[in-house]
Amino acid sequence: MLNSEFNITFCRGICYNGPSEFYFFYTIMQPIAQTMRKQVFVLKYVKEHPWHIIEDGYHPEDNRLFESLMSLGNGHMGHRGNFEEDYSGDSLQGSYAAGVYYPDKTRVGWWKNGYPEYFAKVLNGTNVIGIHVEIDGETVDLGKTEPINFTRILNMKNGCLDRTFTYKTNNKTFDFKIKRFVSYDNVEIGAISYEIKSHDKAIIKFMPYLDGNVHNEDANYDEFFWENCSSSCDKSVAGISMKTKKTGFTVNASMKSKLVLSNNAGDTPEVFATPTEITQEDKYVEHVFESEVLPGTSITLHKFFSLVTDRDHLLENLETYCNNQVDYAFSEGFVTLFAAHAGKWADIWKEADIEISGDVGAQQGIRFNIFHMKQTYNGEDPRLNIGPKGFTGEKYGGSTYWDTEAYCLPFYLSTSHAEIPRNLLVYRHNHLEKAIENAAKLGLKGALYPMVTMNGEECHNEWEITFEEIHRNAAIAYGIFNYIRYTGDSDYLAEYGLDVLLNISRFWADRVNYNPYKDCYMMLGVTGPNEYENNVNNNWYTNLMASWTLEYTLESLKYVQESDPSRAEAILSKYDFKSEELSEWEVIIKKIYLPEIEELDVFAQQDGYMDKEQILVSELDPSNLPLNQKWSWDKILRSCFIKQADVLQGIFFLSERYDLDTKRRNFDFYEPRTVHESSLSPCVYSIIAGEIGYHDKAYELYQRSARLDLDNYNNDTDDGLHITSMAGTWMSVVYGFGGFSTTEGKPKFSPFLPKNWNALNFHMLFRDRLLVVHINNNEVKIQLESGEALTIEIYGKDYSLSTSAPVISKIRN
Amino acid sequence: MLNSEFNITFCRGICYNGPSEFYFFYTIMQPIAQTMRKQVFVLKYVKEHPWHIIEDGYHPEDNRLFESLMSLGNGHMGHRGNFEEDYSGDSLQGSYAAGVYYPDKTRVGWWKNGYPEYFAKVLNGTNVIGIHVEIDGETVDLGKTEPINFTRILNMKNGCLDRTFTYKTNNKTFDFKIKRFVSYDNVEIGAISYEIKSHDKAIIKFMPYLDGNVHNEDANYDEFFWENCSSSCDKSVAGISMKTKKTGFTVNASMKSKLVLSNNAGDTPEVFATPTEITQEDKYVEHVFESEVLPGTSITLHKFFSLVTDRDHLLENLETYCNNQVDYAFSEGFVTLFAAHAGKWADIWKEADIEISGDVGAQQGIRFNIFHMKQTYNGEDPRLNIGPKGFTGEKYGGSTYWDTEAYCLPFYLSTSHAEIPRNLLVYRHNHLEKAIENAAKLGLKGALYPMVTMNGEECHNEWEITFEEIHRNAAIAYGIFNYIRYTGDSDYLAEYGLDVLLNISRFWADRVNYNPYKDCYMMLGVTGPNEYENNVNNNWYTNLMASWTLEYTLESLKYVQESDPSRAEAILSKYDFKSEELSEWEVIIKKIYLPEIEELDVFAQQDGYMDKEQILVSELDPSNLPLNQKWSWDKILRSCFIKQADVLQGIFFLSERYDLDTKRRNFDFYEPRTVHESSLSPCVYSIIAGEIGYHDKAYELYQRSARLDLDNYNNDTDDGLHITSMAGTWMSVVYGFGGFSTTEGKPKFSPFLPKNWNALNFHMLFRDRLLVVHINNNEVKIQLESGEALTIEIYGKDYSLSTSAPVISKIRN
Repeated sequence: MLNSEFNITFCRGICYNGPSEFYFFYTIMQPIAQTMRKQVFVLKYVKEHPWHIIEDGYHPEDNRLFESLMSLGNGHMGHRGNFEEDYSGDSLQGSYAAGVYYPDKTRVGWWKNGYPEYFAKVLNGTNVIGIHVEIDGETVDLGKTEPINFTRILNMKNGCLDRTFTYKTNNKTFDFKIKRFVSYDNVEIGAISYEIKSHDKAIIKFMPYLDGNVHNEDANYDEFFWENCSSSCDKSVAGISMKTKKTGFTVNASMKSKLVLSNNAGDTPEVFATPTEITQEDKYVEHVFESEVLPGTSITLHKFFSLVTDRDHLLENLETYCNNQVDYAFSEGFVTLFAAHAGKWADIWKEADIEISGDVGAQQGIRFNIFHMKQTYNGEDPRLNIGPKGFTGEKYGGSTYWDTEAYCLPFYLSTSHAEIPRNLLVYRHNHLEKAIENAAKLGLKGALYPMVTMNGEECHNEWEITFEEIHRNAAIAYGIFNYIRYTGDSDYLAEYGLDVLLNISRFWADRVNYNPYKDCYMMLGVTGPNEYENNVNNNWYTNLMASWTLEYTLESLKYVQESDPSRAEAILSKYDFKSEELSEWEVIIKKIYLPEIEELDVFAQQDGYMDKEQILVSELDPSNLPLNQKWSWDKILRSCFIKQADVLQGIFFLSERYDLDTKRRNFDFYEPRTVHESSLSPCVYSIIAGEIGYHDKAYELYQRSARLDLDNYNNDTDDGLHITSMAGTWMSVVYGFGGFSTTEGKPKFSPFLPKNWNALNFHMLFRDRLLVVHINNNEVKIQLESGEALTIEIYGKDYSLSTSAPVISKIRN
Repeated sequence: MLNSEFNITFCRGICYNGPSEFYFFYTIMQPIAQTMRKQVFVLKYVKEHPWHIIEDGYHPEDNRLFESLMSLGNGHMGHRGNFEEDYSGDSLQGSYAAGVYYPDKTRVGWWKNGYPEYFAKVLNGTNVIGIHVEIDGETVDLGKTEPINFTRILNMKNGCLDRTFTYKTNNKTFDFKIKRFVSYDNVEIGAISYEIKSHDKAIIKFMPYLDGNVHNEDANYDEFFWENCSSSCDKSVAGISMKTKKTGFTVNASMKSKLVLSNNAGDTPEVFATPTEITQEDKYVEHVFESEVLPGTSITLHKFFSLVTDRDHLLENLETYCNNQVDYAFSEGFVTLFAAHAGKWADIWKEADIEISGDVGAQQGIRFNIFHMKQTYNGEDPRLNIGPKGFTGEKYGGSTYWDTEAYCLPFYLSTSHAEIPRNLLVYRHNHLEKAIENAAKLGLKGALYPMVTMNGEECHNEWEITFEEIHRNAAIAYGIFNYIRYTGDSDYLAEYGLDVLLNISRFWADRVNYNPYKDCYMMLGVTGPNEYENNVNNNWYTNLMASWTLEYTLESLKYVQESDPSRAEAILSKYDFKSEELSEWEVIIKKIYLPEIEELDVFAQQDGYMDKEQILVSELDPSNLPLNQKWSWDKILRSCFIKQADVLQGIFFLSERYDLDTKRRNFDFYEPRTVHESSLSPCVYSIIAGEIGYHDKAYELYQRSARLDLDNYNNDTDDGLHITSMAGTWMSVVYGFGGFSTTEGKPKFSPFLPKNWNALNFHMLFRDRLLVVHINNNEVKIQLESGEALTIEIYGKDYSLSTSAPVISKIRN
């Protein structure tokens, strides 16, 4: 019995093992679920629809799951899809402000020197969406009185959460219709329209409130993370100000509401902008609006709220500013505000949409991923990054993993204007000094970026990850390379990139050790992307990417020395780089040890990989899967089974170095040994499978991540969504099916269309141009929607593309 | 600042990494401390004395340390050296009953499949030694009123804790003299004599009590571990009964006291056996004795207590039995009880004493170790084992580590009659089914004994130790071999040993994997005794001991098949051993892979050892030491530095397999790379150093552990003593300086005398004989004190030894 208890705990996150272990995909469950979804609807949580996420009917047992799926966010703030009114059923209340965190004291079983003292946790903050509702003096609570014809719908087209249901109490009937959004147009405000249409005469009371009595379920020591809570309240505006302990962030929330009474004759509605009563406590403020409703009339509360922090504004102005924001929202009104918000979403979709024809579930899945990526990060603030759960939950904390550079950056490169991915890079630049401290803490030179971080300091505390999964450092260097390759913004090097590259390279040069017996440089004691092996020697991927970093750094240095010599000199001097050190890097590049399995002519994942018993996943009894749930950690570590792309990750990153035969040999060797128990695995394999002509395999692998959260394959969506992995799914479509790549300012495509689909269209931004790629069973058509003409490549052939005419090529499937 | 806070936490035990990480010896501090101890006394806590541990003067700042050093125990119960009267200063109250534990819920940062759910914690139980003392209505509290001429002395000769001091209050003067012991003669009782001699007229009140309001400082979640507490109290006897949560052990304590008033004329003292008042609460009982004292007279409270558990007696009789025990103690009286107790200690010393002439500090140190080993484990109960802190503290929990077989067993073999070490082995036999479950939990066949345990279940929770430090299994097999080799009790195999051996061997055979490329059996993913490398492949020691286990198991099976064929058959059948499985073992034994460093002709600690940068400890700036405090865990793991004997441990265990040259080559290679940051390291190196003629080195290494706790080198003695490591020190003397070994019933000696000593004498039991070995600068003299004549070997030459005359040989130094 207790074992199963622990397994549940395991699933729900105590065991979180790093960004790529967000979920271990149910290799068995997933195809079954896929089938059932099409056939009997038993495992399907969400109704299929191209633009909507629909909870059809009332499912209190899955409320947390739907709350996660229907989270709203705008890059500045966000909430889980909680009900506005009181709810006594199971719920995870979540209201988050980007960049506001608390350094929760580390909890470990056994301390190791070098562990960080704190783990930055995302903070659950003031509840801004709450409205107590009473009918004839009785509180509306769907946990106590079950609603009829309940639907909860996340509209991804316009970023709105809609809820409708019928509620019967004391033989009276009421139709509820609730809309909520957090504005993408003015990210500090949000609004709720809460309408009740009455079939009977009744007294309805709305009590919109702000509540600072909140806690984090995921706190390590059950602490309350806030202090200095104060409130203000008059008959117009009410506010709560709270300050985080230790970090001292002040977050202010304000609200202002009005009541709209419409009769059934279509007359101009009566509007009450002043509450009848107010309540004010330290951490709680409330306005009371009350009115009688007659049969057939409706009563609507419009609640406007603002949430602002002293990260963005001077503390002394914060309260005034916050009240001004809510005043502005109030005066604009719900409809106008919403129109501005929806307009922003229309702009986003214009540049980032992917249309799939012939598979509504796939269409819904890919839009769901794009929608949540855009909700999580709007790219305006280089102090922010892409949290593992965005605004959808509080688990894991931290906000930045190597996922950002390795998986998310390509998404933002292609769906946003260049300053947005650039801000992701500047974030790391701004943390350079912390990364240097982090390396020093381990006794190493240069910069080691953290495994998990909020403000640049390491948060993670498992030695085999924190100290050893250092390949993350290379992803940060690769991000710079990738950004410049895509955007052509080489000036980034002089401004921000070079100092980061130099210090990462210095770390690598210190971390390798020369082996005089074998005359090569080795890297001992690392964990590669495959976290199912820990503390191995000479992980091929890590060694490859380390030496690649050294090469790219030297190239970049040369570029800056030529383009901006005084800047180059200043950087070298600031960090005391001498020519001897740089010469040493040349030697390391030449003598880096990259293990191979000679008899098979494939790269060796690590020194001891072939000493392991070699079994294929297909040879395992399926009852062993997922390994992460069925096997002991000991057995997993000693097995040859691979959690996620490792050698293949290197081949994906440095794709142009390897010919198709090499890719195919390594794919053929590693894919059958890979269990893909990480969301970050199938997309990489899928892309390479597409490239080497394994189209069915590519589609099969794509399916493994496309509807992960929507179908709750990992059984943990109730904790929040797997935000960073969503970008991988996007890559599978654009880089995989679209066969996209780029060098020297030229976008290249080698598309194919999955058999089950009729057509695939995707939009992408490329160097101030908007491209639309149409793929169907006959042809590939690429249009330039806006921007200057350019050369593109399709299946290896160059074409000139201008806005005047699309380029069309026959499809090669 | 916070870093240093964490370092302190680290020292004090959060980071406890396994039995052998009890302390990381202050390589730098130790020689300094040794020097200072001789010269300026600054770092010396304890006054030197051959038989006493003396706190000379009042040292409240070191009170916890002295409480640890002066702990009393008798194998059944024990207490730290706490004061009986109230004490408002810093103190760790500790009162423990052997075998009574609580399964505290595991605390980890990141859960891994296979971790145990609980960690069995030693329980702090009812305070039985407490006596409130009031003088003229004012509580005696040395934390508030500093005593004069304070001494606290642990008398190791008779197992008694003595305390004397002068106490001045309200211009009155009192001389206190307190004696306490827990009986080695009747292990369920103890007694205190609390005498106050008054220089002035005063009213003195004694309130002996039992108090169940106790907690464990080391609880993972601050839980109270007891339930169902009840009390009984009348004017004769008072008692507390408490039951542990979850495990349901009931522990009863009773007390009975009398007051003795002596005048200064030497008249027969007045005795008051009945208290004037009583107090009874759920978890607390108290008797009040009060009397006026006149100048020059003394007043003495004799408190007798008993502590019994339902582990030993029927629950329904427990209270009666407990009261009967305390009645017995009361009626015998303090003096008689003490005489019986002291007599037992005299017997122990007769058989186990080691005398060192010329170095009082060394003499005190070795007796301190023997004394605490004997206090911790009396060998009468095969359900008990040797806890890491014995009865001296609550840290770490569990009671059994591989230390028992590898380090402690030799001590009990030579200082106790055979049934006592035999019980240590039976303990493991009784846990066989749990060990089989433990292996199954990791997905393996056979038996894997736990890293840390109380009742056979694994308690530890660090994957690299719990799942990987599996060499512990071999130590258990080796313990059986070692016991039979020493005692000649081959019948043990049929009765208890064979099933253990077979199941451990089955584990090894499943844990190795055949490598077809290299045609050998490998063992991947292990942690050897050197815990400064984790998750390595082919640790030489582990592979060696695994294949040795298979060999010894097959030999043992053959022995039982010949001596008791039906028993052999029954065991094979019970565990379903077929001949094919046993044949496979033969193949593994032949093809086990034992890595070597060919160019140096030494054994390789593990596959990747020579890929590491090779540096010697002597080449390190001393400011790097101890590594465990100065370096990050990452840096330690990647270094070539060795925490404790690893290859050398194998050479020590299977000594007869290796010639002196091989031993010397391996010692010469590994010792300069070993930092000895484990108490279990120097003794093994010291013994081998002695054997290969490095006598000064042997003595230097011996010094590293001899006074570990007495001089508090690890700065953590306040948590309790390092019990299991004490046996290693004993081995350094008997196996090292004494050069003792044995095969085929013949004790062998190749002694040498450390330069600083004048003489070394040790007693040892061997197959119902008592030997005394005298070593001085001229000769070795071996006497047979009792038992039948036998053949012994000195420096490779056989001698007949009988009680009629000693054997004398010239010393070879």
